[in-house]
Formats: sequence, structure tokens, C-alpha cells
Amino acid sequence: MTPQPNPEQTPTPDPETGAAVKAADRAHVFHSWSAQDLIDPLAVAGAEGSYFWDYDGKRYLDFTSGLVFTNIGYQHPEVVAAIQEQAARMTTFAPAFAVEARSEAARLIAERTPGDLDKIFFTNAGADAVEHATRMARLHTGRPKVLSAYRSYHGGTQQAVNLTGDPRRWPSDNGSAGVVHFWAPFLYRSRFYAETEEQECARALEHLETTIAFEGPGTIAAVVLETIPGTAGIMVPPPGYLAGVREICDRHGIVFILDEVMAGFGRTGEWFAADLSGVVPDLMTFAKGVNSGYVPLGGVAISGAIAETFAKRPYPGGLTYSGHPLACGAAVATINVMAREGIVENARHLGETVLAPALATLAERHPSVGEVRGTGMFWALELVKDRETREPLVPYNAAGEANAPMAAFAATAKKNGLWPFVNMNRTHVVPPCNITEPELKEGLAALDAALAVADEYTTSG
Amino acid sequence: MTPQPNPEQTPTPDPETGAAVKAADRAHVFHSWSAQDLIDPLAVAGAEGSYFWDYDGKRYLDFTSGLVFTNIGYQHPEVVAAIQEQAARMTTFAPAFAVEARSEAARLIAERTPGDLDKIFFTNAGADAVEHATRMARLHTGRPKVLSAYRSYHGGTQQAVNLTGDPRRWPSDNGSAGVVHFWAPFLYRSRFYAETEEQECARALEHLETTIAFEGPGTIAAVVLETIPGTAGIMVPPPGYLAGVREICDRHGIVFILDEVMAGFGRTGEWFAADLSGVVPDLMTFAKGVNSGYVPLGGVAISGAIAETFAKRPYPGGLTYSGHPLACGAAVATINVMAREGIVENARHLGETVLAPALATLAERHPSVGEVRGTGMFWALELVKDRETREPLVPYNAAGEANAPMAAFAATAKKNGLWPFVNMNRTHVVPPCNITEPELKEGLAALDAALAVADEYTTSG
Repeated sequence: MTPQPNPEQTPTPDPETGAAVKAADRAHVFHSWSAQDLIDPLAVAGAEGSYFWDYDGKRYLDFTSGLVFTNIGYQHPEVVAAIQEQAARMTTFAPAFAVEARSEAARLIAERTPGDLDKIFFTNAGADAVEHATRMARLHTGRPKVLSAYRSYHGGTQQAVNLTGDPRRWPSDNGSAGVVHFWAPFLYRSRFYAETEEQECARALEHLETTIAFEGPGTIAAVVLETIPGTAGIMVPPPGYLAGVREICDRHGIVFILDEVMAGFGRTGEWFAADLSGVVPDLMTFAKGVNSGYVPLGGVAISGAIAETFAKRPYPGGLTYSGHPLACGAAVATINVMAREGIVENARHLGETVLAPALATLAERHPSVGEVRGTGMFWALELVKDRETREPLVPYNAAGEANAPMAAFAATAKKNGLWPFVNMNRTHVVPPCNITEPELKEGLAALDAALAVADEYTTSG
Repeated sequence: MTPQPNPEQTPTPDPETGAAVKAADRAHVFHSWSAQDLIDPLAVAGAEGSYFWDYDGKRYLDFTSGLVFTNIGYQHPEVVAAIQEQAARMTTFAPAFAVEARSEAARLIAERTPGDLDKIFFTNAGADAVEHATRMARLHTGRPKVLSAYRSYHGGTQQAVNLTGDPRRWPSDNGSAGVVHFWAPFLYRSRFYAETEEQECARALEHLETTIAFEGPGTIAAVVLETIPGTAGIMVPPPGYLAGVREICDRHGIVFILDEVMAGFGRTGEWFAADLSGVVPDLMTFAKGVNSGYVPLGGVAISGAIAETFAKRPYPGGLTYSGHPLACGAAVATINVMAREGIVENARHLGETVLAPALATLAERHPSVGEVRGTGMFWALELVKDRETREPLVPYNAAGEANAPMAAFAATAKKNGLWPFVNMNRTHVVPPCNITEPELKEGLAALDAALAVADEYTTSG
């Protein structure tokens, strides 16, 4: 496994530099998804493996993998060295040329993608991968509409955010993006009044089938799903669901797009989450884990049939940094390191042997935990006010005072040296895929303490 | 100036590796804006300064700067070293934190942007910068529509390509992107029957004013313009035009967005093309030159008034790699190198003293040259069949046989060791901003020879 830093070694504090970094940030950096005056970004001095630290020398174990992208942890020495080497050899080159790092990254990715997804269109990240995948589907089918799920996130650009099924879509929804939302399976909060996984699966498929029938199959270019929805709550689909969607799409000539931007490249204990079910989509988007976000990179893996559509007819899309050599060089090194160090297997093994039982125990101990679900290094704890009613610990899309319970939970975790992933009424356990067992256990202990605070906000608290 | 490679030094040929790179490319890389079976990408082995070379050891002088992004040339040693150092220190970190490279890049950019464009929202490239700028304008004004120009390019994602005013928009135009196109000034092919620059300017402003009146000023969030349209033809706006647009926008409460993705960071002989006119937009997009594309990076520079809109209310947009440390570290080094080496001044100086007179001479010598226009290292030669009728050398959006004259022009240039920028009936002269005078003259000689081939397709040829 990756060399890990010595947790005893405290980084040298440097509050003066920290204050300068923070001051320039506040003066000039406009932050994502934020009211600029209401945030207080922590100045981060350094990061290594599963940890990062601030300028006061306080260390945090990172249970977020950044935004679920540092699948190999921070500053993996081999990948850093590969970036340095690629920078020296060829840091950048225009996309219309054949370039070694680009060719090799495409080859390594195609080798791992399921089925005949053998052509790789490189983008800068996940959002533009989704933008281009939907364009390919529309042009391949000649149909206008795309179906996506509520409880999903597909990216921040206009088309991608309109595909998204969470409140981040609302301010940009102009009602005309050619998107129709449907409900995917999620037994814990079933929209189908189901009582078993089998029932949830069957009814979710019936719901999709009926929605397609009433929208008009001939108007639908694609169904796009996160293989396992990520930020929306890590709802592992019930057995048979993705295969059922595949069958429905085939029957109606609809392109099936799986979004593996968050779930791909080891996160689930497989190279791709699609491997868990054996389902092969027509297009698959990726980003994040492809090079652990060391250099911005994303892409679309394309089936033979769709690639054929653009064999003699130009694909009308592109970008200056498509297949960026430095980004692709980082991907080559990351994939090779993941293979050699067994990082995917580590995620699966520690997911099964450590996280699954430990999170089940936490759920038993803490009345605030309504449900635990996940696989690999990809888990969600659904926090509730009341286990019987399943009322979320905070309301949907809560802010300010209404969000106090989740804020108190997060503050406690941070105080104890754990940086938690928090979204609405959930905390996700999404550490690097090469985290060690002792690190995991350290994080689980801090999580235990933070959940005790969440418990105070429950009806039994 | 930057150390330049010795043009006498021939790189060692390595056709075997070249063949392997090419084979993997053809098997697995899906290329931008292309019919995949109809392209034949050159395998590039290396690049330095203003040159690159293939695996047969053939060197090319790059008059394209990639896709007009390597403003400091290829492999600038100081920027490569800075990338290596940043990779060792902190290659990546999530956007919600304050990070030194991010803070410093924002500070250096804000120091150079005009007026009060002091807050920087970082994106991965130009397209998403444009996506976010239009979103900010819509939310700031509460209005739905954006006006953009025919003869423009704003990026490949759905919103950005719908703002675009060239044929690349057509396949993705669903007629509902909230975009209205108008005509910007371009005397050589005036849409206003103008005979002088003054007339073109006045009529173009009247056209915009009337278009706004009939679209309904209260429905228009923004006017977006490339400060100098790039791929569309490098049409330097007549004096007074941008100031006139600024005044019209102010009068109607419309946000004025200048897209400096291609024109910014030295290309025009100023840090920003807006500096040529002294006009200050409300939002300014950038990418490419900000770090010469060494690591994918773009962004939006935001005025005080628009930043204030998102002070207490969240900005509903973001991305995983916003303010990516490695990309920002490359920007810090690039900006510092550009300042210290006088690269902006070099672009202005050689533009005035070498390119302007030499291109004027080429226009006199070659009947195929209908017009020469530009500034700094940002020039277009408009190739025509007939100087009197101004009929383009190839039809608008020509392909295949219809495009033969431009193909012959490009092939000749390449044969003579010059890689030319070609778009429709134009060739652009857009070399690195730190190109040397001897290199420029070498390229101009090759251009001279290639134009002789273009001449054969004119009515006088």
C-alpha cells in the first residue's frame, strides 16, 4: 500500500502565512456554491495520504477524499513524480494531434471500461463529460429529450445542472433544457410504497417504463443515471434494476448513459460501479478518480455503435484541453499505481471487513442513524430525528438555524480531527480507497463521538 | 526573452514509437469536432518554445500556439519547474478551502484585470467560464436572455455553444437556450452597408440598440462579446464600439460580459484586449493564456456589484476543480514570467514592427489576400477568390473538395515547416507571444510561399 505519513509527526505551524493565504482568498477568490460573505474557508497548508493540515498544525483525517476524488489519497509519491516527469516532457499540446500520454491514458481506460466502450473522448471534468454524453446521445438517436433521476447530481454547467435532481438545479432551470426527471429506486424513502427491495426494484422499473410510454419513446434520446447516486445519498440500486433499465432502453432504442464521475475508478471496490451488476451502458462518463483529481480530467467512454455514428460525420463538440497531456500523464500513473498497489481491492476488502460491520454497529448505537448503505469506500449514513417516522434530522435543503443539528455534528467531528462529508441530513464515509485499517478505525471513533452529538437532536435525545 | 531551442538541432527520429502512439490514438482516442475516420492526427514527439516536432524528426514552427493558448511557447523552463514544485507541495485540493496557489493566482489576476473586476471564480477552461458568467448575469439581473454576436465562438458545452455564432452551434441548437444573436461590426463584410469604420461603428451600435429595443430591454440579462472575436476572424472592433456597447448596457441595466478566453493574457499586446479601449466590462472570462494551457484553467473576473449579489445569497454553481492548486500554481508562474520577461510588450512590439508591415507586404504581393487585420500576436488574413467581389477563397463552412484551396495552402505551409492556423477562408497568424524576430521572419517566409499556392485559386491565378 501507499506509504502513509506518520500521524505523530505534527506539521510546523505557520499562522502568519495562513493569515496571508486566507486574506488573499477572502479578497479575491469567489467560491463555488456559496454566499461569499457567509463562508469562512479553512486555510490548508498541506496534505499527504489520508490527512491534511492547517497552518496552526492541526491535522485532519479526510473522510471526504476532497469532493470524493482523491481515491489514491493526497500526494501519492509515484503520481507526483509522474506529473513532474510529464511536465518536463510535454505539459500541454492541442487536441487534434496524437500524443503519447493521451494515447496511453485512453488505452488504459478502454482496457478497464465494460463491454465495447473502447473510444475515449477526454474532457476537463465531470460536468462537460455529461454535457458531451447527452449531445452524443441526442445526435445518435435524433431525439430531443433526456431522462434523469431525482436525487442525482450531474455537474454544474447549464445542461448538466438541469439534468441534476437536487436543489442546485432550481436557480438555473429555465424549463427548456430537454430534461424529464423520474424516480429511481430508494427503498428507505420509497416513492413507490414498496416494502421490499424486490418490490422497490420492480415498481421503479414499471415507473420508468410508464414514464417513457407517456413521454413518448420516440422523443427520448437517453436515460442517464449515476450507477450509484453519489452526493444525492449513495443509494446502491437493488439487484436487477440497472439490468432492467438496460432492457427498457434497448427495447425503445434509447441510449443508456451511466455517470461514473464519482462512483468510478475504485470507489465502489470495483474499477467501475457498473461492474457490480455487469451492466454495460452505451456511454459512460468519468472524472475525479481517473487521476485522483491531481490534474483536471474527465471523459466519456463510447460504445462502438455510437462511435460509428461519428465515423464519417463530424462530432460537433470539443474543447481546447481535450486529452491534455499533463492530465493524461497523471491518469496513466494513477491507473498503474492503483493496479499495482491493489487499491481497488483494498477499497473492497476494507469496505467489507471494516466499514460494513463498523457502520452497522454505529447504527445500532446511535438513534440518529436511520440507515447505513454503501459498498467499498462509498457509504452514507442517513441521519434522522426519529427512526420510526424516518423524519430527516434536518429538513430538505435546510440552511442556517434549521441546519444546526448537522452543523453541530460536523463541528464535533472536526474538533476531533475528522473532516466529514456532509450533505443535507447525511454524512458520507468516502475516504481515499487506499486508506489503511488503522486510519479507518481512527475515523470511525471520531464519527462515533460526532454521532453522539447528532443523537441529542433526535426525539429520543 | 525565453531561451529558444537551437533550430539547427534536429530531434532524433523515432518512427517506431510514433507508430505505436498513432495506433493507440486511432484505436482509443475520440477527437474533438471531427469525423473520426476522416482524420489523420500527426503524432507529436516533442515541443519547445515556438516549435514542435514529429517522430520522423520533422520540426514545425507553430503559428497557432496550439489552439491560441501557448502564449509563452512550449515548455517554458521556469513554468515547468513551478508545476513540478507545486506538484510536490500540493497538486490538488477541494475548492471550499483557502489554498496558497489559489489565493495568489486570484490576487495576480485581479491585479491585472480592468476596473473593479477583483473577484475571481476559477473554472477548468473557457467554456465553463462562459457558462458561469451567463448564469451570474441572469441571476444578477433576474432576466432570461443573453445577446451574443454572429461570427463568434464561446465554447463547446451546451450553453456556450448556443452563444456561439458559427456553424458549430447548429447541431446543438435546440432553439431554447435563451440566446439572441446580433451582428457586430466588421467593415470588410459589413452587414450595415457601411463604407467607413466610423459608419460601421455607428450603425453596429444602432443595430444593437434597436435589437435590444425590440427584444425588450427588461428581458435581457447580458450582452456577451469576445473583446476581439478570435476563431471567427480577429475583427478588431472600430474605435468607440465597445464604449458604445458599455453605454447601451448601462442605460438598460444589462450586464456586459467580455470573453477574453482567446484575446486575454498578452495575445493583443496588452494584458487584456479590453485595455486597448479602456472599456471595463461587468464580467470577464479568461482561460488559455492565463497559464498558457500548461494545466487546464479558466475563470470569470467579477465586478464588485455582481459579487455583492452573491455576498449573502449563494451563487448556485461550482465545480470540483475550481481553483485547482496545480493549475493555479502554473498561472502564478506564467503571469510572473510574462511580467518579468516582458512577453506582453514583446507581442506588442513585434506586432507593430514586424507583423504589421510584413503582413501588409504579403497582402500587396498576393491577390489571394483580401484583408489583413489584427494587433499584437493576433492577426487574420482573409483569403479571397477575387479582391473586388471579396468572394471567400472557399465557401462558408466548406468541407471536402470545396475546401481544396485552403487545404492546398495548409499543406504547402506544413511542407515548408510552418504549422498554420486555418479556419474557413482564413489563416490566422497567432504564434507564441514570446516568439523571436528571426522566428517570426522564418514563419513569414513560409507563409509567403503558401500564399503563392492560394493565389492559384484566385480569379487572377
